[in-house]
Amino acid sequence: MELWYTEYQTRNLGLTARIKATLFSGQSDYQEVAVVDSHEFGRMLVLDGVFQTSVFDEFIYHEMIAHVPLFAHPDPKTVLVIGGGDGGTIREVVKHQSVEVAEMVEIDGLVVDVSKKYLPEISQALNENHPKLRLKIGDGIKHMQEVENKYDVIIVDCSDPIGPGEGLFTHAFYQNVHRALKPDGLFVQQTESPFYHQELIRRLYQDITSLFPVTRLYLASIPLYPGGLHCFTIGSKQYDPAEVDVTGIPETLGTRYYNREIQKSCFALPAFVQELLK
Amino acid sequence: MELWYTEYQTRNLGLTARIKATLFSGQSDYQEVAVVDSHEFGRMLVLDGVFQTSVFDEFIYHEMIAHVPLFAHPDPKTVLVIGGGDGGTIREVVKHQSVEVAEMVEIDGLVVDVSKKYLPEISQALNENHPKLRLKIGDGIKHMQEVENKYDVIIVDCSDPIGPGEGLFTHAFYQNVHRALKPDGLFVQQTESPFYHQELIRRLYQDITSLFPVTRLYLASIPLYPGGLHCFTIGSKQYDPAEVDVTGIPETLGTRYYNREIQKSCFALPAFVQELLK
Repeated sequence: MELWYTEYQTRNLGLTARIKATLFSGQSDYQEVAVVDSHEFGRMLVLDGVFQTSVFDEFIYHEMIAHVPLFAHPDPKTVLVIGGGDGGTIREVVKHQSVEVAEMVEIDGLVVDVSKKYLPEISQALNENHPKLRLKIGDGIKHMQEVENKYDVIIVDCSDPIGPGEGLFTHAFYQNVHRALKPDGLFVQQTESPFYHQELIRRLYQDITSLFPVTRLYLASIPLYPGGLHCFTIGSKQYDPAEVDVTGIPETLGTRYYNREIQKSCFALPAFVQELLK
Repeated sequence: MELWYTEYQTRNLGLTARIKATLFSGQSDYQEVAVVDSHEFGRMLVLDGVFQTSVFDEFIYHEMIAHVPLFAHPDPKTVLVIGGGDGGTIREVVKHQSVEVAEMVEIDGLVVDVSKKYLPEISQALNENHPKLRLKIGDGIKHMQEVENKYDVIIVDCSDPIGPGEGLFTHAFYQNVHRALKPDGLFVQQTESPFYHQELIRRLYQDITSLFPVTRLYLASIPLYPGGLHCFTIGSKQYDPAEVDVTGIPETLGTRYYNREIQKSCFALPAFVQELLK
């Protein structure tokens, strides 16, 4: 018997993967949480039926959401990750020597527990004894309403803008992010596919531009996500992430996608994406 | 009733698209040729069950296979396209003012006929009266054995390395390409997905490096193809396509993906692709 799982990425398009086994399936207070083992992508985290990350390609998303903004800041000491329950982003954040405190606020404790058990390669830094980590299970939106002038870098590692992630894609949230950042801070958010979510990207880009003097969109190729091309948007109070002096970036990060050339080239946008942001 | 067509990109992975109608289906001497109309990608050419191109995203492949090598050459006058029966590559080639003759050798006349009828946006330059075009229905491999010192740029716009395209991925073919090029000529070939065809890419890169002083691989994001990331390999006798002075590139090409920044950034390779070529 062959098991295939299909994620309908749009109403009219699906990615279908042959599955070896379902390792976990359960319902949290927020969403349906599953881990499946696939032939092509290895173990995958699936939330509300949507592929979130896989052992095969997770390095791309996690390296790109963490290192691009962190190397855009000259000395990030205090970093916050909102979401990111699988731990992959934190794993990359704590590689930075300058980082003293890596806070993480994830709404769904079940995602953390399941990732620790079934995705140890990804979740390895989610260890209570990790000297830099402050892990809190809680509401990232609420947390953002309560802090001020605290973070050098904020990373919004959220799921799609439906379900628990919805409130993370609003102007009100970005105002709180702005207040929570130090005067030279910056933040990044995953902002979906430039092929299939153009209206969303345009709106977020405008919202962020209305609050931050520097707004930049960058791209990474992620086979698990719709269209294989994913974008991230940075709002920055001072530093321009597209103008980083890459000679200062160490070549010993152990990354498999990110490198000095990518730090520059990820900001080079195809004509249709440039058009989208006008 | 909902119709879905699934292309199995690997043994364990499929892309499934909702279909409005099958516009054409037939068997040529070489392959099964079909045109389907899909909700997400519009009309698509399908050869032996594999999605070749779509009205939605064809601009990316055709702009990137044509403009990157053509702008790497300072004065391309005589250009050959092998394959490319849908006409999209020729459409981009003839945009170059320097190009005087654009030859095309496509093995399958049915692909040309079907593209003219069902994909006019793509095939628009495949017009018998086009002043630059020399279209020949014939075997590109045989043609390469018969010419010498003729072309400035050769574009190998082939399908996958199984079926009629197989002989286009061999060392013997590259030797003939080398001989067919002028002393400062260069060629490009589509060379599949860096996620799913790593052994092929490595072998071709070595083959081309053994014949050409300059070998470069570049990338483009194409949602219709496996992993959404596609690579192209250039063998060049003299010019380095990664070192083009992009200020000379006109901004009036009407491209939707390619631009000056992309001409540079497409050669910036993720760490795992760099590793592959070592």
